[in-house]
Amino acid sequence: MSKWTLLLCCFAFCFSLTDCCRTETNPFPVPERAAGQTDVLQLRCDPIPVVRVAFVGVGMRGIEAVRRFMYLDGVEVKAVCDLSAEKVAKANEILERNNRPKADEYVGEEAWKELCERNDIDLVYICTDWSTHTPIAVYAMEQGKHAAIEVPAATTVADCWRLVDTAEKTRRHCMMLENCCYDFFELTTLNMAQQGFFGELVHGEGAYIHDLRFLNFDEETGYENMWRLKENTEHTGNLYPTHGLGPICQIFNIHRGDRMATLVSMSSDQFGMKAYAEEKGLSERLGDDFMEGDMNTTVIKTAKGKTIMIQHDVTSPRPYSRIHLVSGTKAYACKYPNPCIAVEPNAHSVVTPAQFDSLMQVYEHPFIKEIGEKAREVGGHGGMDFTMDYRLIYCLRNGLPLDQDVYDAAEWSCLTELTEYSVKNGSIPVEIPDFTRGAWQKINGLSFAQ
Amino acid sequence: MSKWTLLLCCFAFCFSLTDCCRTETNPFPVPERAAGQTDVLQLRCDPIPVVRVAFVGVGMRGIEAVRRFMYLDGVEVKAVCDLSAEKVAKANEILERNNRPKADEYVGEEAWKELCERNDIDLVYICTDWSTHTPIAVYAMEQGKHAAIEVPAATTVADCWRLVDTAEKTRRHCMMLENCCYDFFELTTLNMAQQGFFGELVHGEGAYIHDLRFLNFDEETGYENMWRLKENTEHTGNLYPTHGLGPICQIFNIHRGDRMATLVSMSSDQFGMKAYAEEKGLSERLGDDFMEGDMNTTVIKTAKGKTIMIQHDVTSPRPYSRIHLVSGTKAYACKYPNPCIAVEPNAHSVVTPAQFDSLMQVYEHPFIKEIGEKAREVGGHGGMDFTMDYRLIYCLRNGLPLDQDVYDAAEWSCLTELTEYSVKNGSIPVEIPDFTRGAWQKINGLSFAQ
Repeated sequence: MSKWTLLLCCFAFCFSLTDCCRTETNPFPVPERAAGQTDVLQLRCDPIPVVRVAFVGVGMRGIEAVRRFMYLDGVEVKAVCDLSAEKVAKANEILERNNRPKADEYVGEEAWKELCERNDIDLVYICTDWSTHTPIAVYAMEQGKHAAIEVPAATTVADCWRLVDTAEKTRRHCMMLENCCYDFFELTTLNMAQQGFFGELVHGEGAYIHDLRFLNFDEETGYENMWRLKENTEHTGNLYPTHGLGPICQIFNIHRGDRMATLVSMSSDQFGMKAYAEEKGLSERLGDDFMEGDMNTTVIKTAKGKTIMIQHDVTSPRPYSRIHLVSGTKAYACKYPNPCIAVEPNAHSVVTPAQFDSLMQVYEHPFIKEIGEKAREVGGHGGMDFTMDYRLIYCLRNGLPLDQDVYDAAEWSCLTELTEYSVKNGSIPVEIPDFTRGAWQKINGLSFAQ
Repeated sequence: MSKWTLLLCCFAFCFSLTDCCRTETNPFPVPERAAGQTDVLQLRCDPIPVVRVAFVGVGMRGIEAVRRFMYLDGVEVKAVCDLSAEKVAKANEILERNNRPKADEYVGEEAWKELCERNDIDLVYICTDWSTHTPIAVYAMEQGKHAAIEVPAATTVADCWRLVDTAEKTRRHCMMLENCCYDFFELTTLNMAQQGFFGELVHGEGAYIHDLRFLNFDEETGYENMWRLKENTEHTGNLYPTHGLGPICQIFNIHRGDRMATLVSMSSDQFGMKAYAEEKGLSERLGDDFMEGDMNTTVIKTAKGKTIMIQHDVTSPRPYSRIHLVSGTKAYACKYPNPCIAVEPNAHSVVTPAQFDSLMQVYEHPFIKEIGEKAREVGGHGGMDFTMDYRLIYCLRNGLPLDQDVYDAAEWSCLTELTEYSVKNGSIPVEIPDFTRGAWQKINGLSFAQ
């Protein structure tokens, strides 16, 4: 063996030994931004006096949105699309009952493409199953439409980047329909945070704890083709992070002065769905090999040293909770199980009901003052859904930046894949991509356009 | 250069490249058990009709223990030890008021050694600052005494092993005084879990959320020489995990069929203490460079796939909470902010107050039936402290295994160092040592000796 052969062998051995080091490279690096592409922070587009809307997906969530839109000024529902002709017809019945012109009907797997290609639509409002959110939104933006997408906007980090890059290239709005950001208590605590009530913010918590076993295992009235059970069968981690995370990120000024830097995520094994399927005699037909652990707990550290804890559990018999906990150096608030507030110098106890009511009034968010009463009347999770629609349309009509931008959509949604990656790799820390590509300190604090 | 020199150089280079892999080796390996040493699971010692007790540390917690012992049968307080002669005298005043013989007095830094060396003492009850818990307990066991130690039993993994090895070598009891295991709600939920009320257990939560800023920063009436502020200055992670963790570990049968396998831990930066010190004008005298992050969140995975979430925050203005949440496939219970229970088939809501009271009665723990009324009278955190003392003395008098063994003490206390290690290393997963050295499945479920 020559010296050089020996040297070669040694290096081969050496690199095989260093294989283990590969796991330390970041599995979710930030891709370079294309030349000429710039960020869409605080994007303003031309005002649209009457927003022409197309709904894609009018099942559970979509049909409710159509109903709420009947209470908005300055909108025209031009088209409705679904896999089911029956659901499309039901949407048109709503328009008819409200003396509005019938919308054009699109039915079928790919019908949304044709819909997006029309030139008389401003906004595509997407309420399909999770897997089609990104493809439809991307196509809509590429066709020059603004996109509003049900949560989560995407289920992979790659799709989050597709949304960001498409919005940046096309200069279109891409808003995730995170309705919980418009819940009255969440909005009030946001207002409190912005006015310094909590002092320096330290820690926040959010969750999606919602026993969905009944819906997930119901072929008749549950999710179309049981798509949500399929997600729980094929994935683990936090499958649905945005309801708890969104309002907390707004309070913590994520990508408006701070950013989520790393996370660790841990899931219990799967016990509940299996037991439920067995109990209901569904195991044989539906299988019982679900990947999703019942309880997922994720902890996030921000660049400015704050922590956020996010949980997900849709399979355990527990009361509904999004937690929504905000803890700072001066005060504390938590929504579940019952809204409460504690504030210096007597923070060892929560404030009395009378003090609580008074604080809710003092810190009532401008949105609630403006539209709260009507929102409660129209309904939709107690009014938050209508407030969201109202703000979306208001900003589009006035050419203003939307309340939630495409970076919010990406940041909140990307947890789906990042948590799964952490869980599958023994809960290792995972870097959270900076979807603004370095611009997270460009804006100083969240503000809503007026 | 000869072939062999070249080979040697290559290997040297190769090992330098693999340096990064070293971080993947377990930093807390299980040391081999000494020859002849065996476990002390369910250790039984000779019955002690009258337990002769010595108290070491009669400040905050210790003086209360002396007071409670006046209500116990079959005990004699033989000796009292403290750094302060005044505190020792106060303990003796309690004995005098209760017409008991005066205890011998030990005062000074090392006085506990002499106390441990006496041959007329059965139990050394240790309520000193954290740093001296292990040295005193180890010395007491080496002198043939049983040891009862305030929480945490140790603050390092090495000290946890010292406690385990000393207990195994000397065949003495070493019980950590985790009083929260005797809280009435915690005991009731333990009983529920043992009777299958929760179905398969999935997830548990505990915490020590207690605003201690006032005590930590008070030189007059706070902790002796401000030792607790020092701990918060020099360490981060979860400094005080056992109150929340202990009761959850009992419910999850830790080292009695399951074991805590790995954890990840994340701390916020430090905001609250610094702000408090500044506000109170104490920064200059006490410094403001505290290491302890305000909020620590730790998530633990057990060998059987369950998760446990543990939090620590002693610096934020928040109401007191140990959380104590138990979630299974059939039911749910949570103690803070207000005790509640939810159970199939209507677990989307908590049970009514009447149903709650009824469940509390049905699942009332035998300890509460036996001693609850007297414990409430004697007091000490609502009765749990007295129940703990009562059980400790009962088991010693009857030669029974104690409710908490040295492995509990080690498992619950070791989080102090393990969480700090995880936090300081970017929240990496850390293996939790198996202090039973493989015997965690020898006992099938926790039971209390009667």
